[in-house]
Amino acid sequence: MESIYIRNLDQAEWHKHTQEEIDNGADPDLRFCFLVDRDIQASHGLSIGCLVLPVGGELPPHRHKPQGLYVIKRGSGEMHLPDMTTRPVRENDFVYIPENERHGLINTGETPLEILWIFPTDSFRDVEYGYLDEG
Amino acid sequence: MESIYIRNLDQAEWHKHTQEEIDNGADPDLRFCFLVDRDIQASHGLSIGCLVLPVGGELPPHRHKPQGLYVIKRGSGEMHLPDMTTRPVRENDFVYIPENERHGLINTGETPLEILWIFPTDSFRDVEYGYLDEG
Repeated sequence: MESIYIRNLDQAEWHKHTQEEIDNGADPDLRFCFLVDRDIQASHGLSIGCLVLPVGGELPPHRHKPQGLYVIKRGSGEMHLPDMTTRPVRENDFVYIPENERHGLINTGETPLEILWIFPTDSFRDVEYGYLDEG
Repeated sequence: MESIYIRNLDQAEWHKHTQEEIDNGADPDLRFCFLVDRDIQASHGLSIGCLVLPVGGELPPHRHKPQGLYVIKRGSGEMHLPDMTTRPVRENDFVYIPENERHGLINTGETPLEILWIFPTDSFRDVEYGYLDEG
């Protein structure tokens, strides 16, 4: 049964990419945690988590089926856009990403780039990811 | 047509309650802005905004039809819970609020309490609010 759930970022369990994902090009220093997610408590229809991109790190261009939000929590970088250009992002930027729209992030700053992701899904696991610009 | 949309908190237009709402008990110093919202750009299915509660200010106990998320961006306070108790909240708390669950916030700290709200709706306007504990 669902009830009000409060989790602090301090209590989050951090994850990194698996060795298989790293072997396939994923950033070994990128880390992420789930904050509200059906996988960790009873909830539905909204999920949020935090991603930390190390200095110089990249979330390569990709797309996902549902629309999503990014909140730039700390740091600065460049965002990959659908037209293959990038544009700067900085702390307190709020980003709407339509369904299946190409996007990604590069940390071009001198500190870790912290972002929140939000999806209208029960869980991050329900988000269908597609990577682009491959091969 | 929807496209990637980026808005910084610096660019947001801040609002206060209307005189009528204030006459009905709303906090005259509370301010809020819409960051991603169908009312200000083409988007759907997710909306986010920021609320600033002044020192001593209160978002009275209420409920809304859809589930929602709160992110405590800065400051500290007490959260009203369904069982009529409160519990402390602080920076980097992530809160899941089930559908129609009683909740609210009081700024018991010494600085403004800044929170983000997130709903699985096109717009904040689509959120049906009910105030409680009245009369």
